[in-house]
Amino acid sequence: MRTGVWLVGARGSVAVTSIVGAAAVRAGLSEPIGCVTEHPDLRSAALPGFADLVFGGHDIATTGLLKRAEALAAAGVVPGRLVAALHSELSTVDEELRPLPLAATQGEVAAAIAGDLVAFRERHGLDRVVVVNVASTEAAPAPHPAHAALGALRDALQTHEVVLPPSALAAYAAFTAGCAYVDFTPSTGARLPALHELAVERRVPYAGHDGKTGETLLKSVLAPMFAMRRLQVRSWSGVNLLGGGDGATLSDPAANAAKSASKQRVLGETLGYVPDGHTRIEYVPDIGDFKTAWDLITFAGFLGTPMRMEFTWHGCDSALAAPLVLDLARLAAAADAAGRVGPLPELAFFFKDPLGDVDHGLAAQFEALSAFVASLR
Amino acid sequence: MRTGVWLVGARGSVAVTSIVGAAAVRAGLSEPIGCVTEHPDLRSAALPGFADLVFGGHDIATTGLLKRAEALAAAGVVPGRLVAALHSELSTVDEELRPLPLAATQGEVAAAIAGDLVAFRERHGLDRVVVVNVASTEAAPAPHPAHAALGALRDALQTHEVVLPPSALAAYAAFTAGCAYVDFTPSTGARLPALHELAVERRVPYAGHDGKTGETLLKSVLAPMFAMRRLQVRSWSGVNLLGGGDGATLSDPAANAAKSASKQRVLGETLGYVPDGHTRIEYVPDIGDFKTAWDLITFAGFLGTPMRMEFTWHGCDSALAAPLVLDLARLAAAADAAGRVGPLPELAFFFKDPLGDVDHGLAAQFEALSAFVASLR
Amino acid sequence: MRTGVWLVGARGSVAVTSIVGAAAVRAGLSEPIGCVTEHPDLRSAALPGFADLVFGGHDIATTGLLKRAEALAAAGVVPGRLVAALHSELSTVDEELRPLPLAATQGEVAAAIAGDLVAFRERHGLDRVVVVNVASTEAAPAPHPAHAALGALRDALQTHEVVLPPSALAAYAAFTAGCAYVDFTPSTGARLPALHELAVERRVPYAGHDGKTGETLLKSVLAPMFAMRRLQVRSWSGVNLLGGGDGATLSDPAANAAKSASKQRVLGETLGYVPDGHTRIEYVPDIGDFKTAWDLITFAGFLGTPMRMEFTWHGCDSALAAPLVLDLARLAAAADAAGRVGPLPELAFFFKDPLGDVDHGLAAQFEALSAFVASLR
Amino acid sequence: MRTGVWLVGARGSVAVTSIVGAAAVRAGLSEPIGCVTEHPDLRSAALPGFADLVFGGHDIATTGLLKRAEALAAAGVVPGRLVAALHSELSTVDEELRPLPLAATQGEVAAAIAGDLVAFRERHGLDRVVVVNVASTEAAPAPHPAHAALGALRDALQTHEVVLPPSALAAYAAFTAGCAYVDFTPSTGARLPALHELAVERRVPYAGHDGKTGETLLKSVLAPMFAMRRLQVRSWSGVNLLGGGDGATLSDPAANAAKSASKQRVLGETLGYVPDGHTRIEYVPDIGDFKTAWDLITFAGFLGTPMRMEFTWHGCDSALAAPLVLDLARLAAAADAAGRVGPLPELAFFFKDPLGDVDHGLAAQFEALSAFVASLR
Repeated sequence: MRTGVWLVGARGSVAVTSIVGAAAVRAGLSEPIGCVTEHPDLRSAALPGFADLVFGGHDIATTGLLKRAEALAAAGVVPGRLVAALHSELSTVDEELRPLPLAATQGEVAAAIAGDLVAFRERHGLDRVVVVNVASTEAAPAPHPAHAALGALRDALQTHEVVLPPSALAAYAAFTAGCAYVDFTPSTGARLPALHELAVERRVPYAGHDGKTGETLLKSVLAPMFAMRRLQVRSWSGVNLLGGGDGATLSDPAANAAKSASKQRVLGETLGYVPDGHTRIEYVPDIGDFKTAWDLITFAGFLGTPMRMEFTWHGCDSALAAPLVLDLARLAAAADAAGRVGPLPELAFFFKDPLGDVDHGLAAQFEALSAFVASLR
Repeated sequence: MRTGVWLVGARGSVAVTSIVGAAAVRAGLSEPIGCVTEHPDLRSAALPGFADLVFGGHDIATTGLLKRAEALAAAGVVPGRLVAALHSELSTVDEELRPLPLAATQGEVAAAIAGDLVAFRERHGLDRVVVVNVASTEAAPAPHPAHAALGALRDALQTHEVVLPPSALAAYAAFTAGCAYVDFTPSTGARLPALHELAVERRVPYAGHDGKTGETLLKSVLAPMFAMRRLQVRSWSGVNLLGGGDGATLSDPAANAAKSASKQRVLGETLGYVPDGHTRIEYVPDIGDFKTAWDLITFAGFLGTPMRMEFTWHGCDSALAAPLVLDLARLAAAADAAGRVGPLPELAFFFKDPLGDVDHGLAAQFEALSAFVASLR
Repeated sequence: MRTGVWLVGARGSVAVTSIVGAAAVRAGLSEPIGCVTEHPDLRSAALPGFADLVFGGHDIATTGLLKRAEALAAAGVVPGRLVAALHSELSTVDEELRPLPLAATQGEVAAAIAGDLVAFRERHGLDRVVVVNVASTEAAPAPHPAHAALGALRDALQTHEVVLPPSALAAYAAFTAGCAYVDFTPSTGARLPALHELAVERRVPYAGHDGKTGETLLKSVLAPMFAMRRLQVRSWSGVNLLGGGDGATLSDPAANAAKSASKQRVLGETLGYVPDGHTRIEYVPDIGDFKTAWDLITFAGFLGTPMRMEFTWHGCDSALAAPLVLDLARLAAAADAAGRVGPLPELAFFFKDPLGDVDHGLAAQFEALSAFVASLR
Repeated sequence: MRTGVWLVGARGSVAVTSIVGAAAVRAGLSEPIGCVTEHPDLRSAALPGFADLVFGGHDIATTGLLKRAEALAAAGVVPGRLVAALHSELSTVDEELRPLPLAATQGEVAAAIAGDLVAFRERHGLDRVVVVNVASTEAAPAPHPAHAALGALRDALQTHEVVLPPSALAAYAAFTAGCAYVDFTPSTGARLPALHELAVERRVPYAGHDGKTGETLLKSVLAPMFAMRRLQVRSWSGVNLLGGGDGATLSDPAANAAKSASKQRVLGETLGYVPDGHTRIEYVPDIGDFKTAWDLITFAGFLGTPMRMEFTWHGCDSALAAPLVLDLARLAAAADAAGRVGPLPELAFFFKDPLGDVDHGLAAQFEALSAFVASLR
């Protein structure tokens, strides 16, 4: 089952780490550490193998893939020896990366993107292509009446107005080309009624939002723990210090607000109430690609006795995200092959802000994921 | 369903906090925070209510219950206003606390304990009594041939030899009196073939070992998180600083070793491999009843990228343990009422070192517990 | 040497803790823990004793002192037994607390404040009075031409304009009444050329700004450590979670900005360069009077090797501030007695944002303080 | 002033990092970050320059210096590009490294070592040689009567008995050859009356013990902070997780005990009392060369209010130690040139367990160091 993985933001850190990693695993140079689909409970012949994945993508940046990979090696995100050993594989992928098309109307841009997707699929004789958005987080877009229905959207895209943010335009193009779409970012993506209509019309699945890589991953196991133990969480405050490209983007208050809200959602959903405190994102350039998150949780035990816990998480976001990107591409491709259409709430395990009315506890999400994979066999 | 709760170590911090708390909840002065059996998924008419619980117990110490409660209030473990409001309730319980019987042979001691249990049951017209061991941790006992079979054990207990450690002698007496037995400590308790034989003969259930109150509780959600995410835990090191009575006991290397081993067990069972590092217990008198645990976890992500997390847990052990003691008493009583005999592996949720070949992930344990409670209806 | 201590914000947490503490020390019920002037190197007959201090003050709040003290006891800031034992002493002080005067012009308000100060001094036959500002942090005031010179200020105060923020008006009144003035907050206080002129005219000393109680105290020893060791600090980021009255005030962005800038000043001054990162203050009501600060410092060692340290400080701000308030009152009184006029840069040890061009390392500041005390003998 | 630096343990991590670093600084490839002698207050023409240092040494290991440097680069201790650029410099030094001499008596071994030192000095036309011990920590040796006096020691060394531990034998040989001796480890080194006698006889200086690289460095600024602020430290507990060669050595209880005692000494000396708690060293292989130390400090503020702080230090011991080794070599050489004889207590700044009755606060030690350097001019 030859599967295309088309990355939006293909020269960004997450995308490049995914590409390097997939090549390394395929070449037997590295184990697929961090790949959830390699868990014994999830391994399945219904999923395309690492060797079946073909990479392509769009980016507004033009720096060569090799140069980006070397920069990541210098920053400690990927091992330099792997980059050195995979020169020719990376050059081959680099040829499949395209600048984001430009045109007079968003409709024309979408058509050009869809054209790139179809050409990619045909050029490589792929069974299907999954589009994965790993571009920088966008600010929340202004509402627009054309978001509500596909017909109105098609009309609006023919005007010179900016109707859709880039992530949603990518979803529009993906669906148009008959491709599944996964949004790994907190951006809008496919979360508009008009786009849902299009996905259903083209009979493709989609998934999102906002990959759960660090602090929220911990919240998704710690909050259920407090809930199961009937301990009262009084406050939960967090700060994320990060220095990579995403850090600079998120220091923009609008993007920060979107991301922070998405990070606290798990608490209300899991505890059944919202404790004091909030999550803050700070851009500290020297921190680089390794993010440090610190959380303080105050809680009451029996008879109201006050207690507290703190944690520090020091992780490399790109290295945490990349294996999940590969997982999501494999799972979305298998869902597409199995005829699944529309949102995939069973993939909530991967996301901070999952689609659908789902359980936010990680263990329950893992069970849902296992059942989903079993259903694809 | 009037239920006796007979506490071994009845004047210790955990026991006194349990007694004060049960009285406070019954009097409507406090919410049952931290009581797992009050979780919406677990509430059941099959369990005795807080108002149905009658307390008694043994202790080698003789300090009055009120005085012990006031000391806990001064240390911030229970609110002083509750102790002040519950004077008469605590005096009533104090009359039910007995010195641990003394006699020439362990058989005679066991008979005297069993006699106290039966008298307690009859005096209060109780449907049943659950014995809960919350005494200080014992050193691991020397093996003895009489541990292997009930007949041999009965004979050996008639000699002047010390055959059983105190926790096991309490289990022997409990079973003899037809009472369920719960061990909240890492001591031997009912974990001997001869005692299992006796529990089956008397048709009573038992549960244990070692209440999961702090660091191990966190391990039981964090280790499954790493496992589900296929992140490779390279090392997991922890230190527990504690100053209460248990701290002094555990500074004894033999007891420390037993406890530390019990604390690391969850890692091997959940991850499928044992990472570097170990857990250390340190006695620091000034820390008092509030324990501070610090853990460092180093792990590898995609392509081997090294990452790390730390946590600090600052909890009051007695206040964390007490609601679980009440939960366990209620659950063991209901199991006994339902005719359950022998070990109760479904109560693994509560223990660091649970009986039976059970899942060590907290979420799976909660599910098993829910199913167990449902089965009692 | 009978000395009046006139507290601006006399019913706030810091003031009440200072009053309770001074009474407890005088009554022999508590040791003067945290009082720097009791250090063997600083003890001096030139300083008024605890028994020589008489308290009074202004506040816009009217809650009784006893009630405020009991609230602090309930929050764990002061021991309840002390409050109970000091009822009559606290009632006596309560009679010396006045509502802040109201009048048509700021000049009239200042005259009324000065009148209260003079009456307090005469009523108790005091040798001198020190005014200490422990009111809530103000937002930075708009610049005003009358701040530059005393004549212009006197004229402007006769108009109906708001010329001075409350802290500066208090300094104006203090100087007018011939009293020394200490500002324990980051507010304007005496830091205006016109007020300096007045202090010199009335021949009184003043000191400030912003008591160094927690995170900045640590910075003042850690930053010099990095500097002495020639380690390159790359980033220093901090977050302060606090829930007391000051927390609510500081959640106002203007006050927050003033405070945060004052907190980072020590880094530039001590290291000789300003690293990445900044300090954030968050209001989390459940945290209460105990503040938790977390700082992450990344630094480079030999050959640029990246390293890091983190600290968490969990302190009670009022209990940290109160002994320093007593120290400052004693020191300012002694300086006044010794004829010192104008700013007292030798008291930099106590402040985040000290007056004058002083060393920001704590050890150097302690030496300067010792020399100052010795000079008063 | 051409100065030889003879490293005992010359192929260990600290030594190799020192050699690589000195070469890198000399070649202009790196700044001397972490070198205290480059502090503006300490720079002095009395000290030999980096270009004046010539390296040699003994080791029982025989792995090539280049290979060791490459292993350190792979572990992130030194930058790989520096090792690559310094191949020829490292080969040159490698030729000066000797296996530790073997002989029938310790006297003969000492004579062989001294011979190596003299030959090294003459071969390179050096003005003087400083011997620096950076070998693994030894267990404390058994007392021996010959330690007390030089005559007895000389006699005992002619026997087949083991009289001196290796660090002390190295000091004996150094003094015999007229070389200054610095002990960067907690081992015995020159701390024996007989060796002091020899140093005085040969008119050379010596310094030690146990380089202050991490946790103790922090203690030396934090403990004075608590002391200056008159805050009562109730407990100070620490754990050091380390995985390098020294970690394996220190997991030996005897060596651990020596090191831990040396780590707590600063507390008693600085605070004037010894708080609860102790420091533990744990060997965790996966941690590698980067050590993580965690400390919990509980303290009482005004009126006894309990507070706490924690810190985590994540540093690379070799990269922290190496610049100090260069500093000490430069300073000991200058002291020798200036005619200083016997212990150098002014170098206490560098050591956990300094010689002489010195102040343990870092700021006071820095002042003493500055005065010392000034006196050499």
